This record gives sequence, structure tokens and C-alpha cells, in this order.
Amino acid sequence: MAMHGETTGRRSRTSGREGRQRARADHAVPAPPYLTRAIPTYELLSEDGLLRIERHADRILAEIGFEIRGDAVAHRLFVQAGARLDGERLYFPPGLIRAIIQASAPSTFIQHARNPARSVRIGGHATVFSPAYGSPFVADLDRGRRYGSLADFENFVRLAYASPYLHHSGGTVCEPVDLPVNQRHLAMLYAHMRWSDKAFMGSVTTAERAADSIALCRVLFGEDFVERHCVILGNVNVNSPLVLDGEASRVIRTYAAANQAAVCVPFILGGAMGPVTTAAGLAQCFAEAMVCVALTQLERPGAPAILGNFLSSMSLKSGAPTFGTPEPALAYFAIGQLARRLGVPLRCGGNLCASKIPDAQAATESANSLWPAILCGANFVLHAAGWTEGGLTMGYEKFVLDAEQCGLFAVLAQGMALDDNALAFDAFEEVGPGKHFLGSAHTLRNYETAFFDADLSDSNSFEQWSEEGSLDSARRANRKWKRMLAEYVPPPIDAGTDEALRAFIARRQAALPDAWH
Amino acid sequence: MAMHGETTGRRSRTSGREGRQRARADHAVPAPPYLTRAIPTYELLSEDGLLRIERHADRILAEIGFEIRGDAVAHRLFVQAGARLDGERLYFPPGLIRAIIQASAPSTFIQHARNPARSVRIGGHATVFSPAYGSPFVADLDRGRRYGSLADFENFVRLAYASPYLHHSGGTVCEPVDLPVNQRHLAMLYAHMRWSDKAFMGSVTTAERAADSIALCRVLFGEDFVERHCVILGNVNVNSPLVLDGEASRVIRTYAAANQAAVCVPFILGGAMGPVTTAAGLAQCFAEAMVCVALTQLERPGAPAILGNFLSSMSLKSGAPTFGTPEPALAYFAIGQLARRLGVPLRCGGNLCASKIPDAQAATESANSLWPAILCGANFVLHAAGWTEGGLTMGYEKFVLDAEQCGLFAVLAQGMALDDNALAFDAFEEVGPGKHFLGSAHTLRNYETAFFDADLSDSNSFEQWSEEGSLDSARRANRKWKRMLAEYVPPPIDAGTDEALRAFIARRQAALPDAWH
Repeated sequence: MAMHGETTGRRSRTSGREGRQRARADHAVPAPPYLTRAIPTYELLSEDGLLRIERHADRILAEIGFEIRGDAVAHRLFVQAGARLDGERLYFPPGLIRAIIQASAPSTFIQHARNPARSVRIGGHATVFSPAYGSPFVADLDRGRRYGSLADFENFVRLAYASPYLHHSGGTVCEPVDLPVNQRHLAMLYAHMRWSDKAFMGSVTTAERAADSIALCRVLFGEDFVERHCVILGNVNVNSPLVLDGEASRVIRTYAAANQAAVCVPFILGGAMGPVTTAAGLAQCFAEAMVCVALTQLERPGAPAILGNFLSSMSLKSGAPTFGTPEPALAYFAIGQLARRLGVPLRCGGNLCASKIPDAQAATESANSLWPAILCGANFVLHAAGWTEGGLTMGYEKFVLDAEQCGLFAVLAQGMALDDNALAFDAFEEVGPGKHFLGSAHTLRNYETAFFDADLSDSNSFEQWSEEGSLDSARRANRKWKRMLAEYVPPPIDAGTDEALRAFIARRQAALPDAWH
Repeated sequence: MAMHGETTGRRSRTSGREGRQRARADHAVPAPPYLTRAIPTYELLSEDGLLRIERHADRILAEIGFEIRGDAVAHRLFVQAGARLDGERLYFPPGLIRAIIQASAPSTFIQHARNPARSVRIGGHATVFSPAYGSPFVADLDRGRRYGSLADFENFVRLAYASPYLHHSGGTVCEPVDLPVNQRHLAMLYAHMRWSDKAFMGSVTTAERAADSIALCRVLFGEDFVERHCVILGNVNVNSPLVLDGEASRVIRTYAAANQAAVCVPFILGGAMGPVTTAAGLAQCFAEAMVCVALTQLERPGAPAILGNFLSSMSLKSGAPTFGTPEPALAYFAIGQLARRLGVPLRCGGNLCASKIPDAQAATESANSLWPAILCGANFVLHAAGWTEGGLTMGYEKFVLDAEQCGLFAVLAQGMALDDNALAFDAFEEVGPGKHFLGSAHTLRNYETAFFDADLSDSNSFEQWSEEGSLDSARRANRKWKRMLAEYVPPPIDAGTDEALRAFIARRQAALPDAWH
């Protein structure tokens, strides 16, 4: 990734094209553990508009209410805090939820990775890119679409580990459908812990599996460390509209009680789980997510938590969810503003698309999701790589194409250097009107770091591209992920720790009703 | 295109899915003649940063200078205005160029189309999408890449006319290579005038052809109307760095003298025609474009003009131009700010890419160009549809894919409605927690206008998509442009006007050295 305007790089010792190429090849890509945005956020709504949405979210929570189904502890916590309970439905006086959150929720926190150099900051100007989550299917150009397996899961962990532009190992990067449902979480967590050294996410399907996830982290990081630091995220969906089932609320409370971060994500397809108008879906999303974040604070004040946003549009011809459309983009911008005012880190979706294959549709829709995610100031971008077919499929080619687009935003997020080297008056003096800058001292001085050059983008001549087989970018991506897997070297792990992780998993397997095999 | 939050639409008379589908099918797509952005621009640089760039541009013009080669009239105009001439190089005291522009250049103007309902506003909050410009080649999935012909040219004029999301017919939408070079402009202009009723661009290859272009407009619009109104644009490239050849300067002056709009566009590939650092290329681009806009004002104070931006990066591995990279995106945002401060309409590139085919690379790169073009507040977006292979090829499939992405921005640019219908409290009251909104009164009321649904994006199930042939979006685009051409009906034209245009062209052909056939 280019570091604009930095002048501390090594100078080329030879001049001309050869020297430039050598300098460029020498240049190791720096891979910061997360992005630190030096660019401003995009402020879509005015103060008045933001107040309208905030008041509307408050009104929904006060007058329509929010149901938590089958979790008496959660009911008690909210009633003690000032909510009114009627059956399983909670009604919140305007401002109550915001006050609970702002009393104790951290605006930024560190999620620690087992390699400290890979720990990520979540909140503020930081942005973390994490792979797509939850697909039952996987696909590649060779074998097409099929159910995911543990082998696929491990492949995607390896690919995320190998990508300099992904900062996180993710969670259920695909469903390992070849394992019993109640044991998948143990295998998935072991893969994240063993085959990567980046931060990761735990199970959220039951409170018991969430507890397993945290217990495994205690083995990996040590009990005391886990008590004091965030080492795992749990991504919990609201049962939109305005319902949280008891299992989900217990999962949220399990993570919070252990000082780990629940990602609280409404799941709203406009027209189905929310109204068809964007402002209404946005207010609903904000209201739902706030209630869940507030629950984390009632469970354990000061626990890290992330406000989630998943708000999509729908094809009104077919009822199918659509992605990369303008309405969710507008909602991204607004929820970014709302999250900053609330003071809680924001999760958004990344390279989302409805396409079944890594074609132009997939790329356009994905870019139309990632642009607003970055410019709205999202702190944790889930689904940043691989998402295909509305999340039903994790695509190998899509994964590496998306990761490269994340690389582009790593450069964009640095903004524009305006120092003397960047302004380059000396280059204009040297070259002057009508000449070219290729051999100028300024070009040679900045050669190693100038211009992001996407590996999978072919900018060669038509003739050269034809000679090389007229490959489309999906075909080039196919070669790339295979090369990445072939060249993959696992990060080192302490043998005793590895043993302890395996022993824990073996004990849990023995205690679970289904066998491992 | 959805009109968010408008509640004036017809109500559905039947309920349920059938009623919704009927209402949706009835809904004619409104096609405003241009976008009026209701969303804010993205402000990348601070006041201090903008001043640095402005002062740097001033310094380049004062100390490095700018050459106009072989146009003594232009030299005289600038010297009379206060510049110093040395040989053919002009040196401008800091602030001079800005003062010339701000004394008389309009910040917004109307380019009239022969159909008054299609006239476009250029400047302010308006954005106009225009097809790609200047490709010698064309390509489609059936016939591959080949030289463009007049038949191709006419096809692209028809496609732009038929697209509700393109506001302009463009200029050299492809080179009609089957015609003699010195007669192409007459055939191209006739095609724009006859086969579309949208606004268009004229020839810029010689001053004589520019004069022909304007003379043809006098036939179409009437002499008096052309004297008082802008009816044609001429897109003129600077010979970057810091040179304008005499033919180009005469073309600029020809358009300005006739009260028509020169689009003044530096052509900078960083590392070749400008330094490799973004801030330097930006300052150079701004300086060059300002000199050309100033020339229009010296030729005829008050003449419309557009400040152009074409600043691309380069693959430092191969020297090839690259598109959709982060550096030009940053430059877009900044030049948008600079153009607003200057008070002159801005041209940016639209769906730019280096890819040879309409694949994921093409789509990603294009989105990475169009997003900053919109958010920077570009007023005239050239190359909004069809651009392929760094501008060498005009792609049929790319054209319709790009046009659809322009449609997405038509919705985005409207921003988010925040009225009571958009906030939809009645929908929450009707539906409540845990239910769905599909049949709610609010959904039915907003059904016709909710959610942009891209025609070429397939959001169907994997099974349905497979049954329909597993087409990628390029293949669907192939079907679409053929259908659009098959269904094309030319706009009416007055028979006498048509005759007069043909007679003018026949006279000019007879006077030109090469024969028509």
C-alpha cells in the first residue's frame, strides 16, 4: 500500500526503468493491523435530520415497544433501569436507552489477537475489514457452488491470514456442513486460533456455544487476560422487527458478562422486516441495535459492544433481497452519523451483492456497499470479502477480488499528502512544459510508494492481455487464491497452548450428545 | 427511479401481491433531464489544504509558466490582461488567472437541447451524465473488438437517447473510422441532431471543424438563438504538462467567440504528463484548466465554460494508465472543492476502467470512478457509459451496465426523505414487533416508488437464475442493448430543418478535399 507523501523510503541506487522496477519489487507491502482513517466522514443528514431520526427511534421504543422473548433476566435488568414490561414487551421512556449506553459503553476498544501486532482497534477513526460471515455454500470457478466444509472453512481462514488488506479472521466464514451442528463452533474456533493469528469471532447460535467460545479464549489468552481485555466478538442478529429471542439475548449477555464484545445487528430487509421507506428502516435499525447495546451495559457496565447495521432493500418484483442499491447506501451514511453521536463503534456490511458469480453485477453492487461503509466511518466492516448470492455463498474468487478492493480503501483512507514532496515543485522545475516526468528525480524518489496497483486488475495493452489468454478478472482471481493457498505458511503457535486447546475441545466433544465423527 | 417520500403517487386499487405488481408495472419511470443533487458534497480538504493547492497552482503558473504554441491571438489576449510572454511561454502573476475567470465566467448555465424538455443545467447542484468519448474501437460479446463505424456511432446515439439515466448524447461516442477523417464531424453531428433530441458535443480536432459544428447548430437552432444560448460543448484537451497547442487554443476561442462552452480538460497520467504524487498532479490540473477557462473569458467575457479534470494513475510496473484507483478518487474530491471556490462548473470522468471486457474489474474500477465523481459534485460527467480499455474501446454491454449504475446515482442524489410518510410511524403501529410489513398499508401506499431495482442485476434465487441459463450480467446486458435498439423509435424532427441540415452538410462535403463516399 502506498504511503503518500512520506519521504523516508529508501532511494533507488540505479536510475531508469530497471532501477525503478528493482526498487518497486524490493518494496515490502506494509500491512497495518487496521486502517486509521485520515479522511473525513460523509455527513449526509443535517442536525435537524439527525434529531428527527433519533426522536423517531425513541418514539418507536416508547410507543410500539420491543419484545425480548423468554429471558426473564433481561426483562428484570430493563425494568430495574426504568422500562415498563407488559407481557414480554418492553416500553422505554424516551432517552432511557441512550442514557444507559452513554453511561458506560466504550466508544473505542482494542480486540486483542494472539499475535499482538495484529490486535485491532474498534471505534473512532479505525476501520477493520473482516471476511463474510455465515454462508452455507461455497463456490469457485472449478467446482461451482456446493455446501461448505471444514476444509473450505480452513481455506478461508488461510486466505484472510495471507491477505494484507483483511485485518480480521472473521467468524463463520462458511458453514462447515460436514460437521455435526452442535460441534461446528469448536472446530471453527480452533481453525481461527491455529491457522491464523488475527482476531476472530465466536459462536452465537446458543448461549452454551458462546460460553464455549469464551472458554476456549481463556485457554488461548489466559483467564486473567480475557477478564480484562476483549479477545472475541459475537455477532448477534435481532429478530427484526423489534424482537430479540431469548437465546440471542442470552448470547449477548454471555459475551458482555465476560467483558467480550457483542455485535448487535438488526436484520432488516425493507418491505419485510421493516417499512419500505429508508428513514423508517433506519430509525428501526437504530432503535433495535441500541436496545441490544444497552443490554450489554446492564449486564456489565463498560463491556465493549458494537452497534450493527444491516439494512437492505428488496426487489418489489420478486421479494428477493437486493444489495448495492442506493437506499442502504443512504442509510449507511446516516447511521454513521448516529453512531458517532451515540459514541459507540459501528459495524456495517462490506462487499455485499446479490449476484451468484463474480461478474460485473457482483463488483458493482459490492463497490456500492463498500464506498458508503468507508465514507460513513464504519469501524468494523463485516462481509468485506467473499460475500456472494446475498450471503448464501462464500466465493473463492470473490474473496480475493474483494480483498484487493479493501486494499484500495487502505490507500484512500490515508487522504492526500500536501507536504513539499507531494506538491513536487522541484519536479515542475526539472521537467517544465511539454516534457514527461518518468525519469525525473521526483519520480525516482517516490517510485516505490506511488500509486496503488491492484494485482488482479489488468491494465496491459489489449494485445498483451490477449496473448496471456484474454482472462477476465475472475479467472485471474482463481489463479491468485490457489497461489495464496499453495504459498500459505501457518503462523507459529506454542505447542503447549495448542495441546491445551485440543484437550479442551476433546473434553467438550465428549460431553456433547453427538460424536465428533 | 424512486421518488422517496413523495406521497402524491396513485394508490393501488387492489391489495396483495397482484395489486402491488400491477401498480409497479404501471409506474412510468420519470426521467428528469438532469440530476439535481439534494445530497451534500464530500469535503476532503480543509481550508488550509485548499489554500495550499491554490497557491501551488498559482506558483506553477507564475514561475514555471504555460506555453501556448502558435497562437499569437491568445498570447496577445493574455499579455493585455497582465501576463508576461517569453517566446511562447506565458507567466501569470499569482491571482491573475483566477481574477480573469471570476470577473465574467458563469457558475451555471443551460445547454439547450432541440427538445426543450431535454435541456440540461450545467453547474451548481446539477449533474449531467454523458456517454464515453473518443474510442477508436467498439466491442460487443458477439463480434468482439473492432474499429468503430458510423453504424456503431448511430447505435450509441440511439442507446443514449433510449436510456432514462443518460442526460446527454455526448460527442465522439466512437470514431466512425469508415469515414474520411475530415468529414467525420459532419456525420457525427448529424447523427446527434437527427437520432436523438438530447444535448450534444461538437468537433474539437481543428478550429475549422469547431466552426462547422457551430454553423450546423445555427441551422438546427437558428442563428439568433445560438448567439444568445449555449447549444453545444467542445471538449478540448490540454497538451499536459503546461502546454496548449495552437489548434486547441483556437478551438477553445472558436467555441467561446460563438458563446458556446469549451470544456477545458488537462490530460494527466501521473508519472508521465505530471508528477507521481497526487497533490502535484491536482495542482497542475487545476492550473492548466484555469488558464484555458480564462482564455474563454478573454475571447468573450461571459461565455460558458467548464473546468475539466482528467487525472489518472499509472501502473509503475508497466507504464500503462490505470483507472478506478484511489489517487484519482482523492483528486476528484479536491478538485470539486476547488471548482466550487472558483465558481466554475466541473467536468469529471465517469465509469472509467482499464479492463478490456465488462467483467468484475471493469465494474469495480468504474464504480471507483463514479462514486467520487458524484460525491465531489461534478456537474458534467463525461465517460459515464461505455468506457472500456482505458478509453480505447466503446463497449455495448458496458454501456448499458454503466447507464444502469447512473440510475442508481439518480436515486442516491435525491437524498433521504424525512417526512411523516418516510418515517412511517403508522406502519410500525399497524405491524408491530415480530410481524412483516409486506401487506401493510404503508407498503402498498409506497409500493410504486420504493427501492431502485436495477434491471440488469439478478436477485433471483440460485435455482431460478440457473434455470434461466446462469447468465452473467454482461450476457444480460447483451440482450438489453439489442432490445433497446430493436425498440428504438427516432424522435420527430421538422422536415424542413432536417433538409437544411443535410443541405449544409452536402455543401461542406463538396468544399472539402475528400469525397463523402
